[in-house]
Amino acid sequence: MSQRPNAYDVAKLAGVSQTTVSRVLNNFPHVRPTTKEKVLEAIEKLGFEPDEIARSLVKKKTNTIGLIVGNLANPFYSETAQAILNEASKVDYDVIMMEGDSNNISLSEVIGKLINRRVEGVVVASVKRNDDELTKVLTEKSIPVIFFNRTLDHAVNTNYIVVDNLKGSKLAMEHLIQSGHKKIAYITGWQGYSTFNDRFLGYKQALAENNLAYDGNLVFEVNPKGSALDFSMDLLRNNPDVTAFFASTDSIALEILEAASRCNKRVPEDVSVIGFDNINISSNPYVKLTTVSQRKEEMSVLALTNLLKLINKEVETPVQITLEPELIVRGTTTAKDRNL
Amino acid sequence: MSQRPNAYDVAKLAGVSQTTVSRVLNNFPHVRPTTKEKVLEAIEKLGFEPDEIARSLVKKKTNTIGLIVGNLANPFYSETAQAILNEASKVDYDVIMMEGDSNNISLSEVIGKLINRRVEGVVVASVKRNDDELTKVLTEKSIPVIFFNRTLDHAVNTNYIVVDNLKGSKLAMEHLIQSGHKKIAYITGWQGYSTFNDRFLGYKQALAENNLAYDGNLVFEVNPKGSALDFSMDLLRNNPDVTAFFASTDSIALEILEAASRCNKRVPEDVSVIGFDNINISSNPYVKLTTVSQRKEEMSVLALTNLLKLINKEVETPVQITLEPELIVRGTTTAKDRNL
Repeated sequence: MSQRPNAYDVAKLAGVSQTTVSRVLNNFPHVRPTTKEKVLEAIEKLGFEPDEIARSLVKKKTNTIGLIVGNLANPFYSETAQAILNEASKVDYDVIMMEGDSNNISLSEVIGKLINRRVEGVVVASVKRNDDELTKVLTEKSIPVIFFNRTLDHAVNTNYIVVDNLKGSKLAMEHLIQSGHKKIAYITGWQGYSTFNDRFLGYKQALAENNLAYDGNLVFEVNPKGSALDFSMDLLRNNPDVTAFFASTDSIALEILEAASRCNKRVPEDVSVIGFDNINISSNPYVKLTTVSQRKEEMSVLALTNLLKLINKEVETPVQITLEPELIVRGTTTAKDRNL
Repeated sequence: MSQRPNAYDVAKLAGVSQTTVSRVLNNFPHVRPTTKEKVLEAIEKLGFEPDEIARSLVKKKTNTIGLIVGNLANPFYSETAQAILNEASKVDYDVIMMEGDSNNISLSEVIGKLINRRVEGVVVASVKRNDDELTKVLTEKSIPVIFFNRTLDHAVNTNYIVVDNLKGSKLAMEHLIQSGHKKIAYITGWQGYSTFNDRFLGYKQALAENNLAYDGNLVFEVNPKGSALDFSMDLLRNNPDVTAFFASTDSIALEILEAASRCNKRVPEDVSVIGFDNINISSNPYVKLTTVSQRKEEMSVLALTNLLKLINKEVETPVQITLEPELIVRGTTTAKDRNL
């Protein structure tokens, strides 16, 4: 480790205690001017650079927050993490990042680890709807935690920033229904997440409001045994009435596009596909996926700025913000009439 | 901040000094058994949880490393960052992540910030070939730094893990040349990075070794004024002899695929496209991009494990590892003869 001079060397050269050195470094009152002068001289002579961590112990500030993402290889998480890193660096905060989904430890344990590292607050990008252990931890621990993207079902005092997922689904469905589609397949992620629960509700509500029957055969939840690709190919081959697919994430939509390609169906002429998230690849002109924007940059920046407000007690708790979703029509859906 | 008991409370209740509490927490010798017993009793009574940062000050270990990525929204960086996070968590290390490309501060300054946070070492994913300021910093600072993906031009004592980029380019080119392509366009990233410099050399060497002329009109460096999409469309429209494109990254290859689609060229029947990196989206069955694998997971894990060895002085310096690249043939190139 480092051989550079430390506070002990400064104290020794100045002929004072280490406590006095700390007091000078952190501009504490009650230090005699002559003592202060001696310490500053020693600091200069030794080329001593105050260590952020040592100072943070005195100041009770670490300027560090924790960020728990779902799975960093998922573009949604890496793209929002980037926005949070950038925003944090503007206010001189550092970010300790951990994954919540892929480890063998619970979210509560990950938060506990971060608290032991003296983070001042935690941003959580992926939480299960019913994490009772976590709910208990949140009431016991004294540092602020803010959720974004997903939140808890029963958490009156929880801080969160989400998009209106139910409304987002309805926007997507209305776009398809207005284009004349009547048989619309739906592929969802795990219903244990609030995002997928709300989006599924939106799918069902949109059908009901437009007098279209709900058909369980057209709905599929991705699971370890069954892929969106297989389900879509099966449907495209055996159910020619299905003219549109609504995917609960853009990643799932990409699999549906591949299924269409393997079944020799043209997109959007034979089958329309719409996603949810608006990850960067979706706007790539080769993919040009129609999707619902989660407004991920805005959501991540709001999560960070509100966490800082919570840390500094500049905002009333709980912080609960629901953003408006936005439909982005690109090349995988058609607005043409289909036998209306 | 936290109202939980601290080492001071423990010391007070046990009737010992804070130093003694620290000694007990860190299993130092020379603590009387009766004293130790008193401290442990006080810890239990107060429900005191030792704070990682406070302990690290005594142990001179922070179990924290820094990771500097290029641009987290680029899948190459988020996917390698994920591998490093996972590997670090296995050995109970935390990662402070910062971006090196997008901030208005130099890589040297970012490393300086991390050192002030007492990281034990730094992994750097993106460095310019000629960063003289950084070279100076590396010789002055006493914590280990390891580069992966990219490295410095003149850095005899630099630690790095890279793939053999020149050889990777030659693998890609030989694949195209063996399929009968004679006019192969090349689109490169900024030559100030070792990755792009070496890949370009490989392109030129492969042409020379196969008696194909180098044609500057077929080569393009992406820059703020000119996109790979525009260059490719221009070439596809005005130079029908060009039957293949080699892109120095998979992201660029995606733009070429779009250019082909806009120019009504079929891939791979009319034009072959090959990338470099093997980011996750490339294996998506909708994209199925032929590419050269950087072996990014292996590279990132090696970067982390070797950094830890450097921290613990378990390896001779410098660590310099060059991995073998791997050609991955998917659907955007053809192995068919083309008028050989």
